[in-house]
Amino acid sequence: MTEKIKLITPRLPRGFEDRSPGEIAAVDAMIGKIRQVYERYGFDPVETPLFEYTEALGKFLPDTDRPNAGVFSLQDDDEQWLSLRYDLTAPLARYFAENFEALPKPYRSYRAGYVFRNEKPGPGRFRQFMQFDADTVGAAGPEADAEMCMMMADVMDALGLAGKYVVRVNNRKVLDGVLEAAGVAGEEQKLTVLRAVDKLDKFGIEGVRLLLGAGRKDESGDFTRGAGLSEAQAGVVLDYVGGKPPADNAGIAELAAMQALFDAAGYGPDRIRIDPSVVRGLEYYTGPVFEIELTFKVQNEKGQDVVFGSVGGGGRYDGLVSRFRREPVPATGFSIGVSRLANALKLTGNLGAEEPAGPVVVLVMDRDRTASYQAMVAELRQAGIRAEMFLGSTKNFGKQLAYADKRNSPAVIIEGSQEREQGIVQVKDLVAGKQAAQAITDNAEWKAARPGQFEVKRQELVSAIQQLLGEQG
Amino acid sequence: MTEKIKLITPRLPRGFEDRSPGEIAAVDAMIGKIRQVYERYGFDPVETPLFEYTEALGKFLPDTDRPNAGVFSLQDDDEQWLSLRYDLTAPLARYFAENFEALPKPYRSYRAGYVFRNEKPGPGRFRQFMQFDADTVGAAGPEADAEMCMMMADVMDALGLAGKYVVRVNNRKVLDGVLEAAGVAGEEQKLTVLRAVDKLDKFGIEGVRLLLGAGRKDESGDFTRGAGLSEAQAGVVLDYVGGKPPADNAGIAELAAMQALFDAAGYGPDRIRIDPSVVRGLEYYTGPVFEIELTFKVQNEKGQDVVFGSVGGGGRYDGLVSRFRREPVPATGFSIGVSRLANALKLTGNLGAEEPAGPVVVLVMDRDRTASYQAMVAELRQAGIRAEMFLGSTKNFGKQLAYADKRNSPAVIIEGSQEREQGIVQVKDLVAGKQAAQAITDNAEWKAARPGQFEVKRQELVSAIQQLLGEQG
Repeated sequence: MTEKIKLITPRLPRGFEDRSPGEIAAVDAMIGKIRQVYERYGFDPVETPLFEYTEALGKFLPDTDRPNAGVFSLQDDDEQWLSLRYDLTAPLARYFAENFEALPKPYRSYRAGYVFRNEKPGPGRFRQFMQFDADTVGAAGPEADAEMCMMMADVMDALGLAGKYVVRVNNRKVLDGVLEAAGVAGEEQKLTVLRAVDKLDKFGIEGVRLLLGAGRKDESGDFTRGAGLSEAQAGVVLDYVGGKPPADNAGIAELAAMQALFDAAGYGPDRIRIDPSVVRGLEYYTGPVFEIELTFKVQNEKGQDVVFGSVGGGGRYDGLVSRFRREPVPATGFSIGVSRLANALKLTGNLGAEEPAGPVVVLVMDRDRTASYQAMVAELRQAGIRAEMFLGSTKNFGKQLAYADKRNSPAVIIEGSQEREQGIVQVKDLVAGKQAAQAITDNAEWKAARPGQFEVKRQELVSAIQQLLGEQG
Repeated sequence: MTEKIKLITPRLPRGFEDRSPGEIAAVDAMIGKIRQVYERYGFDPVETPLFEYTEALGKFLPDTDRPNAGVFSLQDDDEQWLSLRYDLTAPLARYFAENFEALPKPYRSYRAGYVFRNEKPGPGRFRQFMQFDADTVGAAGPEADAEMCMMMADVMDALGLAGKYVVRVNNRKVLDGVLEAAGVAGEEQKLTVLRAVDKLDKFGIEGVRLLLGAGRKDESGDFTRGAGLSEAQAGVVLDYVGGKPPADNAGIAELAAMQALFDAAGYGPDRIRIDPSVVRGLEYYTGPVFEIELTFKVQNEKGQDVVFGSVGGGGRYDGLVSRFRREPVPATGFSIGVSRLANALKLTGNLGAEEPAGPVVVLVMDRDRTASYQAMVAELRQAGIRAEMFLGSTKNFGKQLAYADKRNSPAVIIEGSQEREQGIVQVKDLVAGKQAAQAITDNAEWKAARPGQFEVKRQELVSAIQQLLGEQG
């Protein structure tokens, strides 16, 4: 009779990811390149915790259907509500307001970190994902917004994406002017209209028309309720989206000032471009908004060619810090979606994700002599060589070799009793071995040739391995 | 009449921390050095998300008073309970079990990440803190445990702490044998006894005696309930803690095997030492347990000299992965408390925390010429120089200079209308200026001398700044 134990099924929670060595190395390298650009622009790192008091975060997520959804919240022992941050901007506003006196003004800062969304997970939609933001707080002029756009462009260049992106720029004040001209009233209707405009890339002008009116049914039959505009009202919005310049307002002037700075700095429309369809989902933007779009084509789930699309964006949020302070505090910034950008770099071959080199593995040929194998490993490590002794069950020699293969080891070291008596060790060059194996088809020939295997004196082990690793490159 | 707006007080949540540029740089450097050691030992990075299903984490925190406390938990949309990880070991067990077929065995991995404890915050007690772990899963022998201890010692050496630490080693099986001999029964009483033994450093042998018996009242009058052992029972435990060797058992043999490996590898008792008082709080340990103790003295809140104490530890946890799988899966590992270790390095001067260098600041002397100042900044950045244009309110020249000072800028660049006509710019060397300012006491003399200020041709700006930064070192 075996005892009955109730086993737990090991499951990664839905909407979350584990990250492999290759992914970690690739994202670290990408973040390093982005950080270099941010620092060259004068931005300093700062980091806030993953939790904030719920009231400090505010509710700015584009989800009016479920006003309390979108955020992971819980009550702590003091009965205060805490929320996991849903972006890195709201916590920055709290940090700046709390440390107002001590911080330089304007305050330029950057931060990479995980954010959380309590949403239904789906393909490419995660509940925990990394953003990498840069913000300038305390700068009111279009110079600060223009700099954000130029920095986004420089980041894309630094990642090897030159010619494959465009930073698209618009202004909420322009959109507000158009909505006013169309007679759109009320916050909720306004947001529904903005989200409809945001869908231009996805659904085209006719799709936007439906979303401005009664609503739109997609191919699966799902119905999205529209903004309920009359035909005349929708016409004003569609004229604007179609390229008709709107009535002059503050937003137009700000865009012109930004355009002059782009021109002077030599950022042409191939890199930064004013585009009336840019909206950005977050509610807290008050002026310029911008979006980094990758313009190369990929295939969607249906096999259709579509542009890769947005990998980040941002805008001016002059009201966010003011919630904490009586005076106005202008601010602007942007956010890069790290996983999405890493996926894009993978597609273009710019990620540079290499499997890390494996360790030299010292095999355990005699269970009673582990101290002496351990000494070999220690010598190799002291010489800066990645090395380990095999620590699993040692009964099966083949399993030890299979382990070394799986670890991508450059070599294994073998010292049985015979070798020990002669004061030597066998070195098996696994790289050469693999190459030779491709050429040899006969099993007996293989065993006789022992490709890539050679013996060295025990005391010359370290220098032999150093030479071998040098030759393998 | 001013409008009345209800302001939100900006507050960092209790038990959480914001991190400054200097702290971020120092911890990054420390983590980099630790990672080098882990990788040289053959460990690969892996990362799991911050959430796990609650049932996968299990309840292993040393908090029997509040069995459900200690962990931040919430229900997701699918009515499943999710918890924020309280350490990095339980998620690794889930990861290994879920990816059993694909992973090399033994599986060596490392990870740094935030963990969360839903505890009353206090001095040095945070609700979010970083751990940096290494684990070998699938290795049953004492070689794997011994390697963990040697790696911890090598990490301390790599951080410049040679001679200031000791890795202390014990075995739960030894403790279990002592508890059995003392007639301690039941999980809860056992854990209370173990926690009492764990307090030897803090309260001395008499304090442990009280905690084994009826309980102990501290100086503030707070009472900690004891384990309720009889005097005879407590005597058995205290004999062991006092150094009397316990009856021979499996734990003693394992400790002897580890000691042989330490001896063979040349890790003397000044670096790794068997110590009967080591317990470790977590419930899931099943064999060897170890702890890194920093041995230098610091003053506690009362001004008394005490040893700095533990900065990490770990042990063997053979049952943790088995909760997911029918076969036994042996495992061993350790965890470093990143903030606590960083604090220790600060005290010993090994942290190497330098304020990052500030940017060159181009001052805005004429609001209409920002495009031309922006061009200067772009030239400097393209040459790899950290630079920015001042983006705040430009009415007050003194405020621009004060900003540059606060940013730790090496130099500011000034181009007014006069300079512009002559095709030159003024460079103000802020490092030389500060040094000169210490020598000059007279205000008029200061203004005449303009220490550290010089003019260069506009087209030689970049090379002049490069030379200046080179001279400043």
